[in-house]
Amino acid sequence: MKIHGKRFQAVWYEKNTVKLIDQRKLPWDFEIFSAQNVEQVAFAIKDMVVRGAPAIGAAAAYGMVLGSRNHEKTAHKLSQTRPTAHDLFHAINYMKKKTQDENMEPLDAAHTYVEAQINACKHIGEYGEALVKDGTTILTHCNAGALATVDYGTALAPLRFAHTNDKKFMVYVDETRPRLQGMLTAWELKEEGIDYALIADNAAGYFMRKKEIDMVIVGADRIAKNGDVANKIGTYQKAVVAHENNIPFYVAAPMSTFDERLEDGKHIPIEERGKKELTEINGKQILPNWTNVRNPAFDVTPAKLITGYITDQGIKQAIA
Amino acid sequence: MKIHGKRFQAVWYEKNTVKLIDQRKLPWDFEIFSAQNVEQVAFAIKDMVVRGAPAIGAAAAYGMVLGSRNHEKTAHKLSQTRPTAHDLFHAINYMKKKTQDENMEPLDAAHTYVEAQINACKHIGEYGEALVKDGTTILTHCNAGALATVDYGTALAPLRFAHTNDKKFMVYVDETRPRLQGMLTAWELKEEGIDYALIADNAAGYFMRKKEIDMVIVGADRIAKNGDVANKIGTYQKAVVAHENNIPFYVAAPMSTFDERLEDGKHIPIEERGKKELTEINGKQILPNWTNVRNPAFDVTPAKLITGYITDQGIKQAIA
Repeated sequence: MKIHGKRFQAVWYEKNTVKLIDQRKLPWDFEIFSAQNVEQVAFAIKDMVVRGAPAIGAAAAYGMVLGSRNHEKTAHKLSQTRPTAHDLFHAINYMKKKTQDENMEPLDAAHTYVEAQINACKHIGEYGEALVKDGTTILTHCNAGALATVDYGTALAPLRFAHTNDKKFMVYVDETRPRLQGMLTAWELKEEGIDYALIADNAAGYFMRKKEIDMVIVGADRIAKNGDVANKIGTYQKAVVAHENNIPFYVAAPMSTFDERLEDGKHIPIEERGKKELTEINGKQILPNWTNVRNPAFDVTPAKLITGYITDQGIKQAIA
Repeated sequence: MKIHGKRFQAVWYEKNTVKLIDQRKLPWDFEIFSAQNVEQVAFAIKDMVVRGAPAIGAAAAYGMVLGSRNHEKTAHKLSQTRPTAHDLFHAINYMKKKTQDENMEPLDAAHTYVEAQINACKHIGEYGEALVKDGTTILTHCNAGALATVDYGTALAPLRFAHTNDKKFMVYVDETRPRLQGMLTAWELKEEGIDYALIADNAAGYFMRKKEIDMVIVGADRIAKNGDVANKIGTYQKAVVAHENNIPFYVAAPMSTFDERLEDGKHIPIEERGKKELTEINGKQILPNWTNVRNPAFDVTPAKLITGYITDQGIKQAIA
């Protein structure tokens, strides 16, 4: 990704140090967090210096390099950080397998893992780019960008490639309450020089009905065998309203997000998070403490509302 | 409405003073603003001490009492406060007509005007109450409560009457970004002792799909001849998702909100407001100043998505 005109990854390895763009500070300040030992990597994951499942996986892979002298202890420590991020365990197991069973050098194994992640997003961008025409207006939800995926992003990858190819288009960015990840997406697009406007989550339907949105692209946390998609809360509403207005709705995700063991979306457990995500923003109180709150973090969009899946193996038509 | 167990109106007249619940302070502090002259009433409307078109109308009617010695000057001053609120001009014209043409005492005329407003909401509550059963879960959007309408509210009136009749039900309250009017609704329901939970605007679809919402009731800013409804931004999305899930969607409004001169919703102008409504909350910065923003304040819900209209003359079936 481009930041202040220079190329960056969300996570990289340099001189025995794991380097991370500090996402706790964004989009207010751009700072690099340096983790020089396993404890510091574990802290960075737990404290959300790094967020987004693929980016967390990359940080863990490099963490396993720093702690390669005691793989079991390192694996244990890192796996205690975020209990639900699938990529975290995937990365740890990959590192164990490559270094212990296949005798690969830890740093080589980690680089291989991270490169594969980056390449998957790059391919998503190359395939998805064809969907973006001159004059297209795209809606996206949450942050499925380079910050969440080491580089390129999933939903944002096609936009990066279209921009590189000089296509002129515009992006509506859902604010994405409660955690406001839309501001990370706005920041990424601003840094790339891509035209965008952030909107309240309530406003997407207004622009769809006015035919000011031609296409929706979102990321995915997990995709079931029948094509149902779990993603950030609010994704389902956008899919329903897009369908009502005959607007194509695409999900961008690497093949590794497809969970073949899961029959359909009904079986995806949905996490409900704490009330402070609604009552506070960046530690500032915005709603009274007495407010009763329900706060589901994800929802499931049924396959019938999805036009296609932009993957690293090409664009797949809807399954159901 | 009940506040700390006592009955209140959003606007009333007492000892040559217009009394207003200070909505700039809510839900943090409960304070009464006293306007003793026309200037202070004009300030209260302009600075949003009082908000909600019917409540603004009531404040203006009493403002005409305070300035009754020079009706023309008072009318002019008050009409400069909020250029778009239809009820403001309606109240001023009503006061002129009654006091000048029909020689009514100003205070009697204002009381008559405000009583009619309150009664309309009361009738909405009585008719709409029948829709709320034991165990019903209702979604509402924005604040169509007593604060916005002197007393009872429109969307909240049926809930108040159902609660008085000892029905047990639960209300999901959309946060309603960007201006967070959901917290005013949460406050009203808390004060009445009605069970509720505030949710991110993104979460309503999740609860609808899980069949945890049985009915939607919203207010309206204007209703066209064909039944199209202009209301707070985000209303349209909820209507589409309710329709997809076979959930009844009701609009609660007095007959005066029906604009017989307007053929359909296409002709309702939609105000776009400033970016600070998104980037700041209560003066606290939550998104960077560089963020590009689009901020439409209302949207139009087509009549085909509306189950019925809860009015002061009964529940009317959808028109289209």
